Amino acid sequence: MSQTKAYAAQSATSPLAPHTIERRNPKPHDVAIEILYCGICHSDLHTARNEWHGTVYPVVPGHEIVGRVTAVGAHVKKFKVGDLAGVGCLVDSCRECDHCKEGLQQYCTGGATFTYNSNDKDSPGLQTYGGYSKHVVVNEDFVLHVSDKLPLAGVAPLLCAGITTYSPLRHWKVGKGTRVGVLGLGGLGHMGVKLAVAMGAEVTMLSHSKHKEPDAKKLGAHKFVLTTDEEQLKSVTGYFDFILDTVSAAHDYNFYLGLLRTNGVMVCVGAPDAPASIPAFNLIFGRKSIAGSLIGGIPETQEMLDFCAKHNIVSDIELINIKDINEAYERMLKGDVRYRFVIDMATL
Amino acid sequence: MSQTKAYAAQSATSPLAPHTIERRNPKPHDVAIEILYCGICHSDLHTARNEWHGTVYPVVPGHEIVGRVTAVGAHVKKFKVGDLAGVGCLVDSCRECDHCKEGLQQYCTGGATFTYNSNDKDSPGLQTYGGYSKHVVVNEDFVLHVSDKLPLAGVAPLLCAGITTYSPLRHWKVGKGTRVGVLGLGGLGHMGVKLAVAMGAEVTMLSHSKHKEPDAKKLGAHKFVLTTDEEQLKSVTGYFDFILDTVSAAHDYNFYLGLLRTNGVMVCVGAPDAPASIPAFNLIFGRKSIAGSLIGGIPETQEMLDFCAKHNIVSDIELINIKDINEAYERMLKGDVRYRFVIDMATL
Repeated sequence: MSQTKAYAAQSATSPLAPHTIERRNPKPHDVAIEILYCGICHSDLHTARNEWHGTVYPVVPGHEIVGRVTAVGAHVKKFKVGDLAGVGCLVDSCRECDHCKEGLQQYCTGGATFTYNSNDKDSPGLQTYGGYSKHVVVNEDFVLHVSDKLPLAGVAPLLCAGITTYSPLRHWKVGKGTRVGVLGLGGLGHMGVKLAVAMGAEVTMLSHSKHKEPDAKKLGAHKFVLTTDEEQLKSVTGYFDFILDTVSAAHDYNFYLGLLRTNGVMVCVGAPDAPASIPAFNLIFGRKSIAGSLIGGIPETQEMLDFCAKHNIVSDIELINIKDINEAYERMLKGDVRYRFVIDMATL
Repeated sequence: MSQTKAYAAQSATSPLAPHTIERRNPKPHDVAIEILYCGICHSDLHTARNEWHGTVYPVVPGHEIVGRVTAVGAHVKKFKVGDLAGVGCLVDSCRECDHCKEGLQQYCTGGATFTYNSNDKDSPGLQTYGGYSKHVVVNEDFVLHVSDKLPLAGVAPLLCAGITTYSPLRHWKVGKGTRVGVLGLGGLGHMGVKLAVAMGAEVTMLSHSKHKEPDAKKLGAHKFVLTTDEEQLKSVTGYFDFILDTVSAAHDYNFYLGLLRTNGVMVCVGAPDAPASIPAFNLIFGRKSIAGSLIGGIPETQEMLDFCAKHNIVSDIELINIKDINEAYERMLKGDVRYRFVIDMATL
């Protein structure tokens, strides 16, 4: 075991603060990574504050990790010391179920090992600790290759916000000719716009805030629809093939189902506390679907990183010093970030 | 115009009773049909009693119509006098929108003309009148060919209950290897079982009534799961690729979403009064979808009738005298029918 500096929450109500954790020594298939940047995801805050229940303290959040390989186990084939490397939301899975065999580890029937606050199969009795730390040790099968052509800090959020939006766009075959509406212009939404545009879709940002229009256009959205403007709304009623719903605050799903054309699909990647309340008729008329999607599997995460490298896509970020993380959490709650905080791990 | 005997409701609270309606004389593209049998759909009752609002009285319900052609317009090519013919829920549509051009007339953007209680484009100012009548005149493009190899009374319900279940099974590519759960053993559910079995799927009837098991098996269901039995329920948790939900009574959608495997789809063809209440996480974990489907277009309805003729599939029916229709409505409300009432129009 080796000691690693980290930031941890000691309880649901305590701020994140310096803490020391133990990392296992690399096993034959492990990769040790010096973490350079770690994105801040809303899930980090939910977990730190036990808002989804089940948090085991102390908890070290962070699952948007990029860094450099510092050591590899004897049997590691995919990485060598000095390589750039990424780690997302998953660090292991059962590897035996149908989903794992298909590369859909996020839906592992045996129970995937998440990057933090999961039982750590490799360190029995311990929880996994995330990326708000100096180093991490991960089995090579769950480590991603990261291009050296992109600004590294902006790559970090791709590991969660990127794959969370990329996966449903791919699964529902968004491409040239698809009319995509993106709901919510935050960490997820801004990636959704960039990725859908790069896939060749016609992308519309749906928002009730007029002041978001210039930003949406800057991100590449072809259209901006102010959903409080009746005329604009009318122009997209029954219009979209696909709506990517990234909103975690309560909202009326039926309003947006009305913007789908026949056979349209609305995919939720945000999860409000309140359940969606949907009369069946709103699905029946127009053969519409509402679906959900959870991050992505390892092969698809690599595919997404390669796609981003090819299309020169990174997240728009605000780089912070780790001592400012609690303030960043508060600002994130107010939506005061364009569009993702990333911790410069040199400040730890 | 010609006078036609019918049964109509004069108000939301009056029983169905004899009534005389006017039918237009066949235009060049019209087919005149002597109605031999007409199925009774729950929508008939909803409309007769104005439960969906918007009913214009007097209303003549009935959209599961089979009969024999008695006259054809000068330009009719697809039918000749003496042919068997079927009419379902649609008698016209705008014919110009993308959906109409694709044969998805049920989703016509211009507004389809339904078989009853719709504005009749061909008789301006009048409503359409349905199949609880001696004759009907319909544009040939909305008349279906019916096989003479099947018992005709059992064919009638295929025109609504059949296509309503066939269309989603086809759209979501149910076939060999698909694990299908059917929810609700009524007019729709019993057709869903027969059709999914004929398509080669593994079909499970999901029910909370043990006494339905023998019937489900008789209809061809491979399995029966008593959803109140914990052991049985456990055996199908995360099991189904596709659930056909035919239930119109309030029910917990989340319970059944839990029976879907990853990528599973639950399609609603029944529409309870209460909206579905679904936490987004129940869709996100497992990339699940909930969707709706509305009857089917004309080409697919013909395909379904041909499929049924090939596989020797009809609805299980109870043939009634039209004077017993109000009693049949009451029995339908209690679920006291296996599985569809059909009116013998010789009794009118």
